[in-house]
Amino acid sequence: MPQLSKKGIELPTSPIRKLVVFSDKAKERGIEVLHLNIGQPDIEAPREAIDAVKNATLKLLPYGPSQGELSYRKKLSKYYSQHHIDVSPDDILITTGASEALTFALNSICDAGDEIIIPEPFYANYNGFASAASVKVVPVISEFKSRFQLPALENINDKITSRTKAILLCNPSNPTGYVYNKTEIDTLCELAVQHDIFLIVDEVYREFIHGGIEHYSVLRNPIGAQHTVMIDSVSKRYSLCGARVGSIVSKNKELVRNILKFAHLRLSPPTYALMASEAALDAPKTYLENVIAEYGKRRDVLIQALEEIPDVEVSHPMGAFYCIAKLPVEDAEDFSKFLLTSFHHHKKTVMLAPATGFYSTPGAGVNEVRIAFILNSEKLKLAATILRIGLEAYKKVHAVNLV
Amino acid sequence: MPQLSKKGIELPTSPIRKLVVFSDKAKERGIEVLHLNIGQPDIEAPREAIDAVKNATLKLLPYGPSQGELSYRKKLSKYYSQHHIDVSPDDILITTGASEALTFALNSICDAGDEIIIPEPFYANYNGFASAASVKVVPVISEFKSRFQLPALENINDKITSRTKAILLCNPSNPTGYVYNKTEIDTLCELAVQHDIFLIVDEVYREFIHGGIEHYSVLRNPIGAQHTVMIDSVSKRYSLCGARVGSIVSKNKELVRNILKFAHLRLSPPTYALMASEAALDAPKTYLENVIAEYGKRRDVLIQALEEIPDVEVSHPMGAFYCIAKLPVEDAEDFSKFLLTSFHHHKKTVMLAPATGFYSTPGAGVNEVRIAFILNSEKLKLAATILRIGLEAYKKVHAVNLV
Repeated sequence: MPQLSKKGIELPTSPIRKLVVFSDKAKERGIEVLHLNIGQPDIEAPREAIDAVKNATLKLLPYGPSQGELSYRKKLSKYYSQHHIDVSPDDILITTGASEALTFALNSICDAGDEIIIPEPFYANYNGFASAASVKVVPVISEFKSRFQLPALENINDKITSRTKAILLCNPSNPTGYVYNKTEIDTLCELAVQHDIFLIVDEVYREFIHGGIEHYSVLRNPIGAQHTVMIDSVSKRYSLCGARVGSIVSKNKELVRNILKFAHLRLSPPTYALMASEAALDAPKTYLENVIAEYGKRRDVLIQALEEIPDVEVSHPMGAFYCIAKLPVEDAEDFSKFLLTSFHHHKKTVMLAPATGFYSTPGAGVNEVRIAFILNSEKLKLAATILRIGLEAYKKVHAVNLV
Repeated sequence: MPQLSKKGIELPTSPIRKLVVFSDKAKERGIEVLHLNIGQPDIEAPREAIDAVKNATLKLLPYGPSQGELSYRKKLSKYYSQHHIDVSPDDILITTGASEALTFALNSICDAGDEIIIPEPFYANYNGFASAASVKVVPVISEFKSRFQLPALENINDKITSRTKAILLCNPSNPTGYVYNKTEIDTLCELAVQHDIFLIVDEVYREFIHGGIEHYSVLRNPIGAQHTVMIDSVSKRYSLCGARVGSIVSKNKELVRNILKFAHLRLSPPTYALMASEAALDAPKTYLENVIAEYGKRRDVLIQALEEIPDVEVSHPMGAFYCIAKLPVEDAEDFSKFLLTSFHHHKKTVMLAPATGFYSTPGAGVNEVRIAFILNSEKLKLAATILRIGLEAYKKVHAVNLV
């Protein structure tokens, strides 16, 4: 048998999809699984996006420009300016999803063995992107008790070595829902400039802010212009996850030129998806306002319902559509598995994402789960009830096991 | 200024797109550029593919399965069986273009510093994919005079070291049009088994065979089942380049499982493009028959026209839609640039792809170009005339310069 790569063998399995084998089996047994584990919107995409594809008159699909059509990049630059982000179409490179944008950023900045610093918990696939690029993730713990705000600057500073090439952040954060404020972002920009490293901020949840605070993009910091990179995607904003269209934005022209070489290699982003993404920008303002209001409502419903469960603690998310919950169990992965394999409530159960996969420090987050508030309010209430009953059932089984 | 990655800086520029800056300027001067440099089909895609997207009733685009929909993989397995390739849907993983398939294959098989052997000239982006994965390309020269058939086995054998992880081939070959026969493929399979390395064959041009010979897929060799990987794409077959849908096929289950982890990371291939690709398989048999006949006609027109130009030698392509031409110039890149910057024939010129970018041995192919026969016959005839006149003009300028 020929040998596979070490990095492939060591590539971590996604914690979001890890338990899929058990949920599939539960479904085979006729049990309905409420998915709290995945950020898959159920809200309709803008009609403009769907219609653009429906009305397309293409007779064949040619390759497009590797950096994306100029018309789309122009419209995106206008969209960003509405968020006080001043970038030209040349600063924007269209990618096949934020996943590709992150891969391009890592590969353009890091060689094998280089390090990136990430506050944890973080989006689990960051581990994978780094691993695939043979880059080492250096985590800095952010604390549940402070709602996962930025770790103390000296803790980050302590991790910087000669191999450190970047700090990576998700703002608003998946999985914590924390929204880094202007002071935090500016502080990190100064740190990046001081050490001459990059600050990469994944802002795909930019629009989803709950409670009237303002999102501060990393590209708004003027002194960091040569050191900052923003990652974006249409997936969550317009319920276009399957489109696979994202972008990478930076004022560092040398970096953008370098990333373009990686973009040339894969030729171009997908045609129909680009048409939908460009047209989505023509949706009336009310489209996103309604979407944001709906997620805000779901957030309130979920947080209230979770807080009513005895001994469950919830991080109060200010953005995105996830929260971290501490459960009264020793091992949240074992409990999540139990919910899928050994439990149901009137033929229904819930699927959670165990939080350990969102940390890279071994043992961290072992009694935590990530919960997405992406189902509608009725389903979220029901899911919380099932979670409460599931916890009671698990406790009983454990009590018996301990005897 | 923060430092970029060494591999990004060293990533080669595509020879196919290298001269774009000059062709853009020529177009600005009002000159029509006939593109012989790029394999961009102008034939309509199957109506079934276009209609599937037009008639889609999606209201949002959810993520799909990372390995592609089962229904599509089932239909693909049936398509392959018509080509005597016996694979199950589980042996197939759908990718975002052949580019992603190649990247996944390299990353699943090779770590940084590992080596892959490729007969040259080869598809220029192989250099890029390898470079992006920090993998070293070890070329073995194949000869113009033998129409680029497989190099002698001992020449390949000599290149195998403890770091060699795979041999990579394109069959039919881009850029030479050579079609490797059963004996050549079987020989390579035996070599791969003997050294316990992989044999990766890019078969995206499978259908485009000229002159009645049969294409022999690497997956037809039974002894190599654990050592062979096939790369595929809908781009050229159905004029769906912009779809970005490809596949990676192997009977090595451990490899497929490993590649699936990379696939999980980027979540899923693009939705609309998948719909078009799946529906393309419903096109009547006559669709591909007509397309193949048309390219065959264009091939004959181009080869005849090129052979009429004094001192031009042409590799006789048996497959794909490219050939390598030896020109009576010292430096084909300088000549290609001349055609775009200092020449026109009745306000028209041609764009060529200098062949050096398809070699990795320095200096190889310096008087060669790759020519695509992708334009219609009229345009191909005109392009050959312009090339002839361009060569005369270039010779005159050079004669003057030499005085």
